[in-house]
Amino acid sequence: MTRIAIDAMGGDYAPKAVVEGAVWAAMEYNIPIELVGKLYDIERELDRIDQEGIVVGGGMFAAKKIKVNTKKLDIKKTHASEVIEMGEAPGQAIRKKKNSSIVLSVNAVVTGSSDAVVAAGSTGAAMGASLFGLGRLHGIERPAIATVLPTMKGPLVLMDSGANTDCTPEMLYQFGIMGSTYAKSVLGIENPRVALLNIGEEAGKGDELAKDTYKIFEENKDKLNFIGNAEGKEIFLGNCDVIVCDGFVGNVTLKTIEGVARMFFYMVKQEFYHDPITKMIGFLVRPILKKMYAKVNYEEFGGALLLGVKGITVICHGRSSAYAIKNAVKVAYNAVEAGVNKSIASYYGEIE
Amino acid sequence: MTRIAIDAMGGDYAPKAVVEGAVWAAMEYNIPIELVGKLYDIERELDRIDQEGIVVGGGMFAAKKIKVNTKKLDIKKTHASEVIEMGEAPGQAIRKKKNSSIVLSVNAVVTGSSDAVVAAGSTGAAMGASLFGLGRLHGIERPAIATVLPTMKGPLVLMDSGANTDCTPEMLYQFGIMGSTYAKSVLGIENPRVALLNIGEEAGKGDELAKDTYKIFEENKDKLNFIGNAEGKEIFLGNCDVIVCDGFVGNVTLKTIEGVARMFFYMVKQEFYHDPITKMIGFLVRPILKKMYAKVNYEEFGGALLLGVKGITVICHGRSSAYAIKNAVKVAYNAVEAGVNKSIASYYGEIE
Repeated sequence: MTRIAIDAMGGDYAPKAVVEGAVWAAMEYNIPIELVGKLYDIERELDRIDQEGIVVGGGMFAAKKIKVNTKKLDIKKTHASEVIEMGEAPGQAIRKKKNSSIVLSVNAVVTGSSDAVVAAGSTGAAMGASLFGLGRLHGIERPAIATVLPTMKGPLVLMDSGANTDCTPEMLYQFGIMGSTYAKSVLGIENPRVALLNIGEEAGKGDELAKDTYKIFEENKDKLNFIGNAEGKEIFLGNCDVIVCDGFVGNVTLKTIEGVARMFFYMVKQEFYHDPITKMIGFLVRPILKKMYAKVNYEEFGGALLLGVKGITVICHGRSSAYAIKNAVKVAYNAVEAGVNKSIASYYGEIE
Repeated sequence: MTRIAIDAMGGDYAPKAVVEGAVWAAMEYNIPIELVGKLYDIERELDRIDQEGIVVGGGMFAAKKIKVNTKKLDIKKTHASEVIEMGEAPGQAIRKKKNSSIVLSVNAVVTGSSDAVVAAGSTGAAMGASLFGLGRLHGIERPAIATVLPTMKGPLVLMDSGANTDCTPEMLYQFGIMGSTYAKSVLGIENPRVALLNIGEEAGKGDELAKDTYKIFEENKDKLNFIGNAEGKEIFLGNCDVIVCDGFVGNVTLKTIEGVARMFFYMVKQEFYHDPITKMIGFLVRPILKKMYAKVNYEEFGGALLLGVKGITVICHGRSSAYAIKNAVKVAYNAVEAGVNKSIASYYGEIE
């Protein structure tokens, strides 16, 4: 049975939101869970949930409170005496704090007590602990973060979303391989179309990195469905399934999308609430906008997948709600069940 | 009197939209114009306008047709026998086609017959012709493109929007100086706040380029109001006035914004037009959305300014409408009147 280890202490609203999300996932999807963190905190939260219940809903669904008996759910508890804080230097922290919740979450996968990790704390610490604890997949120089974005037609995998700031063309090619494998095995996309994020469509466009990466993709067209360059404005048309870039560009792109989306909803509010008539129209529009918001809300996508390590680690937004954690557990579960790592490894001729 | 030279042959809808936009600017703002292109085409368009009038409006204003007598407007016509097409290699094309409309538009500024150029054709050709014809400002290694973006609070200058793909930290610092000068002299922002586009707020974040650039900005804090790193999601909060990055990242960011905005309006359409009730609500909402769209529509901003050359060149979107051209002429006019180049040059101790 696939079990998901969750760093109960990671994220802005931990342990409350994390434990609630874990309980919710265990209930809704029947997924076995391993909560890793300070035992006292975990048990206090579980007791509270048993007494108060949890609020389910979120996204486009109305919230409601339901009763829960956490003792009837398959939830393991593993004590971790330390916590890595957001400000700490990740490399140093994971070496020093061997009993931190993130290190022991990864350790749960290493020892086989769980099959994947969900973490909403420091991204650097989650990456470092995973790389250090699980090791790289054969053929992969640097693990990268895959984020799933909504488009006009379907989901799109952005690789790398921020793990590697300075990249070589070979690394970007590997991101393409991993992204394609993910799109195929987890999202179920047949023969995923892979594009290189660039500032023009023609070959020969872009900076040195983009030009050299283009050549490698072209040379390996038999191994990968490379469809050429794609500009930022095309990302959302749904004309490709995987978009490849270095982690600096990927992270800026991702956060720009978040910023534009927020501005849009801010503007909607401004326009609708400045006089009584538009206020009335705004009242009618609210459910429609809510539905739209749910489609672009990062919480729906549940977190980004660290690809390239010998295991599955789902990295969540620091501000993750219980709803986001619940969805992240599902993403981790699906990735394990789909055998995404076996697929990447088999591309490089090594079945594990 | 400040006169604006316009490449009448550049852009997807040239010469029609360009000539109409030029006439509109001459009428609305009383700005003297120099149309550069095939004389036969220019005169045919002007004759047509004299007979048919032009459609004014656009953006949030309803369109209406008005009568025009172009002979009463201050419009010079300069013949250019050649046109540089979108597909041509810019460097080669500007050397070979010395009588092209873009080269002669820049030449009009060199000879003093006009004071600035507006161009909607090949961005590479407009940049190349400007750099080659006008020369660089003292102290500037590479000219860069400044784009003005809307935020929740006010306008923001993005530097570089796509002129330079591979940059050094020194170049990025110069982009900061130029962007700051532009924000001050053209947008009227007192002591503009300059931020470095990065993937985290803390110093020491980002790729090698960002880290090294941060140091230069820090060392020159007395010359520039450097406020540190800004993430993509903060761009739209209006907490900074100038955001600096290399042209690759800037162009991807700009086009991502365009893509997200388009997806939003697509989603709005989808959500509102799928049943009779939401259709009715959609009907009420339309004017409000139109107003919102106008605020983010690139046509309102009229084009991007090439900074760092000894002259003013405004580069427009290839799909520029007459409305976009009219606004671009205004941007060029304002930049000349504000003396943005004098300000940049004086920073480097050379008043021209």
